[in-house]
Amino acid sequence: MNSIQDLIEFARIDTTSAKGKGEEGAKFIRDYMQEHGIEARIIRHRSKNPYVYGEINVGATKTLLIYNHYDVQPAEPLDKWNSDPFDPVIKDGKLVGRGVGDDKGSLMARLQALIEMGKPPMNIKFIYEGEEEIGSPNIDLFLAEHRELLASDYVLWEGAGRGSSGAPTIVLGVKGLLYVEISVRTQKDLHSMYAPVAKNPAWELVYLLSSLKSGGRVNLPGFYDKVKWLTEEERRYLKGNKRSMEDALGQELPDDFQRRLVEEPTCNIAGLYSGYTGEGSKTVIPSYAMAKLDFRLVPDQDPDEILKILQDHLKGVDIKVWGKVRPYRTSINSKIAKSLMDSAKKVYGVDPEVIPNSYGTGPMESFARILQNNQIADGVGVEHPGSNIHSFNENIYVDDYMKAKEWMKSFVRHLAQP
Amino acid sequence: MNSIQDLIEFARIDTTSAKGKGEEGAKFIRDYMQEHGIEARIIRHRSKNPYVYGEINVGATKTLLIYNHYDVQPAEPLDKWNSDPFDPVIKDGKLVGRGVGDDKGSLMARLQALIEMGKPPMNIKFIYEGEEEIGSPNIDLFLAEHRELLASDYVLWEGAGRGSSGAPTIVLGVKGLLYVEISVRTQKDLHSMYAPVAKNPAWELVYLLSSLKSGGRVNLPGFYDKVKWLTEEERRYLKGNKRSMEDALGQELPDDFQRRLVEEPTCNIAGLYSGYTGEGSKTVIPSYAMAKLDFRLVPDQDPDEILKILQDHLKGVDIKVWGKVRPYRTSINSKIAKSLMDSAKKVYGVDPEVIPNSYGTGPMESFARILQNNQIADGVGVEHPGSNIHSFNENIYVDDYMKAKEWMKSFVRHLAQP
Repeated sequence: MNSIQDLIEFARIDTTSAKGKGEEGAKFIRDYMQEHGIEARIIRHRSKNPYVYGEINVGATKTLLIYNHYDVQPAEPLDKWNSDPFDPVIKDGKLVGRGVGDDKGSLMARLQALIEMGKPPMNIKFIYEGEEEIGSPNIDLFLAEHRELLASDYVLWEGAGRGSSGAPTIVLGVKGLLYVEISVRTQKDLHSMYAPVAKNPAWELVYLLSSLKSGGRVNLPGFYDKVKWLTEEERRYLKGNKRSMEDALGQELPDDFQRRLVEEPTCNIAGLYSGYTGEGSKTVIPSYAMAKLDFRLVPDQDPDEILKILQDHLKGVDIKVWGKVRPYRTSINSKIAKSLMDSAKKVYGVDPEVIPNSYGTGPMESFARILQNNQIADGVGVEHPGSNIHSFNENIYVDDYMKAKEWMKSFVRHLAQP
Repeated sequence: MNSIQDLIEFARIDTTSAKGKGEEGAKFIRDYMQEHGIEARIIRHRSKNPYVYGEINVGATKTLLIYNHYDVQPAEPLDKWNSDPFDPVIKDGKLVGRGVGDDKGSLMARLQALIEMGKPPMNIKFIYEGEEEIGSPNIDLFLAEHRELLASDYVLWEGAGRGSSGAPTIVLGVKGLLYVEISVRTQKDLHSMYAPVAKNPAWELVYLLSSLKSGGRVNLPGFYDKVKWLTEEERRYLKGNKRSMEDALGQELPDDFQRRLVEEPTCNIAGLYSGYTGEGSKTVIPSYAMAKLDFRLVPDQDPDEILKILQDHLKGVDIKVWGKVRPYRTSINSKIAKSLMDSAKKVYGVDPEVIPNSYGTGPMESFARILQNNQIADGVGVEHPGSNIHSFNENIYVDDYMKAKEWMKSFVRHLAQP
């Protein structure tokens, strides 16, 4: 096994779920597990991209379920990449390519660690999905129909990495998501000379959007009603290095950036389109204007309730829903949390950063609710704050990848202790 | 000469000046004139697309200069066309294709009328440009350097057609234009999980745009200061059929639509772009957001002054200028206006509609100022209110095309009278 080379082979496969790609990636990882002596199979369900399930049964009393996803975000805009997103290269100690951070790198680091362990001290189950990046539209039904297969004592989430403080990160929850596309139409494009009297969907969209948010605050009535703001205790576990995060994001940040990233729900414009966007000028009144919006939700906001509020606010506007995920938080006193914290400290030599819920989203709540498991936590990941996940030039440090493998081994040993 | 077939051949040539196309169209029309006994030649100047000049000198004392343009607007979005925009077809009495209305149809109808007259009763000069649709960026310098060549007593503008009242239209001026692209950038795209603290150029653009206009009124300080509102007398000459205009635009209109179309300056969003606009969802904070804006200006607004106001308002925002044209109006008591009105009434049997300035734009002010000619008017055109110029399925009625040729002949006879 050549660990980095194998990851590169995996990352070469375009598994952009937003474009319906993934099948080839699923087969690759199934084959990879089988070649290394792990029982594995493809499970077809309602998703276009299949699930991959694997198992190492050592006859132990406790079982860890490892969740990862093999799909990736679209690589566009391609001209911003310094190398082909689907032909990963190693440069200056970094591996660059789509998915090396989110989530193929963590998937492979954990898998290779367990393969290297030979016989781990507890039972391991693997579940890999192929539509996390489009909001895991079918995960609930899949889990409900595979409750026994996935029965476990602990769930290890998809993988974080090092935070902006440099310390390894443990995350005990996720934000939720509501992803919508709103659009305004008229019958046809018109010459812009009719602008004194004609409706312009682009203007209508601008006014609608500016009504949604101002001064950093979402203006939908009741939007913040169910937000569980962090307690003083939870805030104490937050770390985060402002300078390093600013470098990573290429922007100046407020001092309370870490609290806000964890605690605040958002309304983000992810895309805008209307009319003529090419070179030069076209004097047209567009017949169509569209915005893609993602709302990151925090415990205990409910995406269905937020959607209802949005529909009431945007009466008569076409709203297409592209994704809904509920937020979730687990306890910092759980066995899985303690095992992650102890093993992290052992491997990295520093106290880990513990985050009540991630800045991002995943179907963690579905696992908790459907599998009736409240020991779900994230750790053992390969990313760093400059990994540019979901953006261009996505990358991880090769050293971080190797360290994650060590952490995985130590974590499993801690977790297996009675 | 097969008049419609020759127009179809001309319209088959893609002369989209926004994409740098036009050369082939210029050569076609030069050759066409020469083949029919008219002196014609290409004149290369600073524009990428050359000018075409032609002349019929019958030794008369008065000269009419005919202005048209052979370039067209981009045909996008192509999927909205029922037929290939560059392979014109005749269906239900209409000729459909890019440019058949604006402006190749009027150009050809006039040219063919004069060819058919054999020896017209006055001298005729033709000047065809290839960059009207991108704001005629070099016309001023071209006119200044060709004052003697273009010396004339009257200028016939590019061609209107029938208005929404059904009557032939005469236009005595044009609106001006300021076309800009404004954009906001950050260093890179970010995962939208950073939305609680990261700048989002799309949001910034939305707020900037919504600050520019509200309630149909442009909010730039001083924007309306130089507007010459129509006099009671000028308003009396306005016609316009609301129902027919509503059918043409596919929208409901206010009762005073005709006055507003003539009199009001505008700020129109012609294009919007940011982030992910493809199928499905991508949870990204875009690093770039752009809007294309066209301001239609009325006498006596000055595009340079309006640009200055805009720059002051949008301090620090990147503003790219794609076009500037000044507005213009000529007198309703001029010889050219009266000749157009008399000939129109004779050919069409109804009083023409007389509009102090068009809803749209052209470099008429440059002709007036540089050629020192204040007898510039528009008439003898082929369009109708449903022509969809600048939009998809651009079309003209074949009957209107034939009528325009008759109008051209009658107009020249009237104008040549002492």
